[in-house]
Amino acid sequence: MPDSKPQIRFRDPQIEMAHGAGGKATRRLIDGLIAPVFGGPLLEPLGDAALVETGGACLAFTADTFVVKPLRFPGGSIGDLAVNGTVNDLAVSGARPAALLVNLILESGLPSEVLAIELRAIAAAAEKAGVQIVGGDTKVVEHGAADRMYITTSGIGLMDSRVRCSPASVRPGDRILLSGPIGDHGITILLARGEIELEADLCSDTRSVFPMVDALMSIGEGLRWMRDPTRGGVASALNELATDARICIAISEETIPVRDQVRGACELLGLEPMHIANEGQFLAVIARERADEALNAVRSVPGGEGAVLIGEVREAPKKLVLSLSAYGGTRVVDMLVGDPLPRIC
Amino acid sequence: MPDSKPQIRFRDPQIEMAHGAGGKATRRLIDGLIAPVFGGPLLEPLGDAALVETGGACLAFTADTFVVKPLRFPGGSIGDLAVNGTVNDLAVSGARPAALLVNLILESGLPSEVLAIELRAIAAAAEKAGVQIVGGDTKVVEHGAADRMYITTSGIGLMDSRVRCSPASVRPGDRILLSGPIGDHGITILLARGEIELEADLCSDTRSVFPMVDALMSIGEGLRWMRDPTRGGVASALNELATDARICIAISEETIPVRDQVRGACELLGLEPMHIANEGQFLAVIARERADEALNAVRSVPGGEGAVLIGEVREAPKKLVLSLSAYGGTRVVDMLVGDPLPRIC
Repeated sequence: MPDSKPQIRFRDPQIEMAHGAGGKATRRLIDGLIAPVFGGPLLEPLGDAALVETGGACLAFTADTFVVKPLRFPGGSIGDLAVNGTVNDLAVSGARPAALLVNLILESGLPSEVLAIELRAIAAAAEKAGVQIVGGDTKVVEHGAADRMYITTSGIGLMDSRVRCSPASVRPGDRILLSGPIGDHGITILLARGEIELEADLCSDTRSVFPMVDALMSIGEGLRWMRDPTRGGVASALNELATDARICIAISEETIPVRDQVRGACELLGLEPMHIANEGQFLAVIARERADEALNAVRSVPGGEGAVLIGEVREAPKKLVLSLSAYGGTRVVDMLVGDPLPRIC
Repeated sequence: MPDSKPQIRFRDPQIEMAHGAGGKATRRLIDGLIAPVFGGPLLEPLGDAALVETGGACLAFTADTFVVKPLRFPGGSIGDLAVNGTVNDLAVSGARPAALLVNLILESGLPSEVLAIELRAIAAAAEKAGVQIVGGDTKVVEHGAADRMYITTSGIGLMDSRVRCSPASVRPGDRILLSGPIGDHGITILLARGEIELEADLCSDTRSVFPMVDALMSIGEGLRWMRDPTRGGVASALNELATDARICIAISEETIPVRDQVRGACELLGLEPMHIANEGQFLAVIARERADEALNAVRSVPGGEGAVLIGEVREAPKKLVLSLSAYGGTRVVDMLVGDPLPRIC
């Protein structure tokens, strides 16, 4: 008798860094092991916020873990990421962030001042994002059983009744919106580690995207889908959408904003900017007839001036992301494979 | 001009294991650093569930991190704790657990089978506790940057309208209820590490206490306060109550159930059973006139047969927990100092 639950089909013998990188190996772990064990189709996609209806309220509920190395980098720190990352997961789920919990794993011997600096960063980022920290938990492990500190931030938000985004709402002809330049966060972390001989005037883009998303939600049902392209980058986020919605996404390569410093570092290191993690950008799919209005809404918000339309949804070839160059070339944009930049968030 | 926010007064130069043990050092870290930075009096007590009112619903929202060593032990595993610990935090806040998120930090090189076993333990514990796992997140760190796996479980629940517990509701004359024998979890972990020459037929008490709490909530407003005495044990939980409610708690030492194996191990090692962590027990304060009814309600639930009344609330001496022996002696029961059993949950 066939079992309606998805089968466990994860055959990797051990966990590797790539399983945490947000690309193909992560998808294999989630779809092949975690989702089948936890109940499969009942489950909201792992990595996004889950929708929970309780007590008459429709809530988004999410939690993200942060293990970024180093703790501090140009433009931010683990404390900033821990707030903005969870706030952004709520925002792109179509929710107004309401409350956060902050859970810490601390390595014994961590200087108290390092902790105090990150707690202040968390408090400041939460205030800036307009969300309240309502509690948390702290665990300490032996020296050598963690790398200084790890943070898990849980968040709940109230779903905005103006929109209900999902891959199932996406239609051929819809347009793809990107909020700004890509790759800043990942390349900033890479340079902050000092492992490569390269200097660039570059900052992480960590920030709350809620103000931009809030403006975008004013277009109502014309907004089909949103996602923040963190681990695995824009390429992985669009590939997940193409797979889940069983459509094709065609993007115009030259419309995607990439700073010179990011493009230069990627060329030098053989990396693809569309695979690099972002912490303060989002992607959205918009009905064709509302695309200009959506773009203007995002651009009207401080920080959203760099938003662009980068492509469109097509009927076929299904489950593929295609990149079209101005010279007529077409290439397939695949998900991230392996983990070129471990512990990016 | 006086600042109404609590002042930072944490002077320990670095983080030590004791800061995560649930006793005096933990309280010093939370009250002296975390709460002041995160906003002080606005904040729900860290370590409990926070109450969040949103969209017309009154919710409990909590997250606990688990770093127990070893991963598996008689009676359970980190996966069981990760579900039951969060379910119990919701339950003793007076909420019906609704949904959980499971966040993993995995050490690179972890055998996939070890992960699969814990995922199955999580799924089984969630099913048994009647709560749904709706999502999560997975991060991988380098070999040596974590000890196999750590889990953070976030939970939301709907507040039960029959009760509203808080330290402020506690009155002199109220009775103290304990759900069963103490110290089983902590001593089981200690023995499972094999570091001491002692064998005992003992299991962790990890379980959901929600069925017992649900029965107890039938007494309505006569239920004043609840807490699950995990890290820091019964002594630390009662001391926190005595401090927060500015009352005295007087307990009759011989009414507290302690298994012979736990008492024996504690005597041998110079530990106090009331400082040992529990994972499947709870404490409650009940109005005097409803105490027998409350006891019967808990005892009527399978697993609650061992519930007892262990003492009462007194007017003074404020902020103290006193233990009265049958021979007329009185001693002060202090919070846990230091961390005799690191990484107990």
